[in-house]
Amino acid sequence: MTVNVLFAAQPPRWDDYHKPLKDAFVQAGIEANLSRDIPPDEVDYIVYAPNGPLSDFTPYTRCKAVLGLWAGVEDIVKNETLTQPMCRMVDSGLERGMMEWVTGHTLRHHLSIDQHIHGQDGVWRPGHVPPLAADRPVTILGLGALGRACAQGLVSLGFNVTGWSRTPKSIPGIRCLSGDSGLTAALSGAEIVVLLLPLTPSTDSLMDASRFAAMARGSYLLNPGRGALINDDDLIAALDAGQLEHATLDVFRIEPLPADHPFWAHPKITVTPHIASETRPPTASRVIAENIRRSEAGQPLLHLVDRAQGY
Amino acid sequence: MTVNVLFAAQPPRWDDYHKPLKDAFVQAGIEANLSRDIPPDEVDYIVYAPNGPLSDFTPYTRCKAVLGLWAGVEDIVKNETLTQPMCRMVDSGLERGMMEWVTGHTLRHHLSIDQHIHGQDGVWRPGHVPPLAADRPVTILGLGALGRACAQGLVSLGFNVTGWSRTPKSIPGIRCLSGDSGLTAALSGAEIVVLLLPLTPSTDSLMDASRFAAMARGSYLLNPGRGALINDDDLIAALDAGQLEHATLDVFRIEPLPADHPFWAHPKITVTPHIASETRPPTASRVIAENIRRSEAGQPLLHLVDRAQGY
Repeated sequence: MTVNVLFAAQPPRWDDYHKPLKDAFVQAGIEANLSRDIPPDEVDYIVYAPNGPLSDFTPYTRCKAVLGLWAGVEDIVKNETLTQPMCRMVDSGLERGMMEWVTGHTLRHHLSIDQHIHGQDGVWRPGHVPPLAADRPVTILGLGALGRACAQGLVSLGFNVTGWSRTPKSIPGIRCLSGDSGLTAALSGAEIVVLLLPLTPSTDSLMDASRFAAMARGSYLLNPGRGALINDDDLIAALDAGQLEHATLDVFRIEPLPADHPFWAHPKITVTPHIASETRPPTASRVIAENIRRSEAGQPLLHLVDRAQGY
Repeated sequence: MTVNVLFAAQPPRWDDYHKPLKDAFVQAGIEANLSRDIPPDEVDYIVYAPNGPLSDFTPYTRCKAVLGLWAGVEDIVKNETLTQPMCRMVDSGLERGMMEWVTGHTLRHHLSIDQHIHGQDGVWRPGHVPPLAADRPVTILGLGALGRACAQGLVSLGFNVTGWSRTPKSIPGIRCLSGDSGLTAALSGAEIVVLLLPLTPSTDSLMDASRFAAMARGSYLLNPGRGALINDDDLIAALDAGQLEHATLDVFRIEPLPADHPFWAHPKITVTPHIASETRPPTASRVIAENIRRSEAGQPLLHLVDRAQGY
């Protein structure tokens, strides 16, 4: 039997995805009609991005699941018309890319690479040798698929890694902490902190003055997670006071970050334009196909969103 | 029986090393008199750095071995007064630090981090997503202890790593090539090339116009090995022609690199002041102690220099 799969993301994504999706459907043994134009009451599955054309799910009465292309679902869980099962994207390509961005910027700050990039003035400054990675405490907030991949990448380079999550987790080689009291312990003495939490009411503005104060003096912040995890004013104050040495931010409360936002001009902030990682069509298409296969076979869906938790 | 160990390196090194060496001797069960001042004909072992006070080994008639603190021995092998067995330093701390510097700068170029550091002008430029590390060919020339550690670090991050050495080697997860024909194949298509060869007559100026031409167009060069591995003029020509995109250089034919050397001002070169890695006293002291223990027990020395090969 043929299933009707509506592709509801921005037009350039259609160019990226239609062939990888069709290939993945064939490989999964799914006979699918993939299109951007299917009458709502005939749609079986929706491949979905929040910035695409679709916002009212009411007319999709036959739809068995909404299969997201994004890892972050904070905008989707607020949509009250969405009553169908909703799956997040958990893509190995996205994970690999995120691990590369996080290890790259961690090493950049660990090795003070910026000092050398900015110091090409003919003065030979041997300075001090950085500690080895084993003596550099790095803390990752969030131990979902992305946080876990980053933690493992950093451990493979020898870093001393602590991870924190809302509920207790256990990952070999990583000191795992959880809950409110665990958060203070996880930040305490951390020299590099990486934010990979989902955005929920309880993580909004989580990183405020008190949390920055818990980190080691002169420490570094990486945010490839969600912009609203940070209180922007408190971050600037912590940088200006020298409590933090530098922040490298990939995500913001408003994107694109407005040209007059103080982050752009701050000498201790590096803005990157939401490029830390992105979903890769070949691997993401296989995740979509696997979920359709499971649904058709009556098996549980992968990466189902828990609306009560918000992710 | 007490052995007399002469410490012959620059005075600041004495401050770094005298306690770790004494601790390592105790742990190895060696009774040693460690000093910077011992009559030459009473010295049993010399702990040595080429930039220290000692250049004529002739009066050290009883000396059983010269134990170097440096990984590079190109200056030492030319010293005709040195007839005693000579050992290089192979220090796990040096290896870890080198792996961190090489993976850090490889990721920096892989992710085009400089573009973001230099692009804090309020313009949001999402641009293109870099390939995953698995699709980035990296070649390491030299598979001694340092090259091998770096290759393994890069493999753990998922890079596609080729290694080249004069004699055939085999390392899991790395495409190993050797000999003259292997060198061309190792450079062919490489997007990031790391130089970790010893300096010998056959590697002097190895990286010349023809070798740069073999690399992928727009590729990157990292040199934490020895300055004279590169033909400086050919490197500048390859950068100016766009054949190479950037070179990050830690070592030079003359150090400190003179303020008027064209490398400093070149926009496609990053100079770092010979800080890629350095020997760490606690781990290096254990290597020295182990070699004295072996010598006293009649066992073969570790890391013995082969003067014919020059390393």
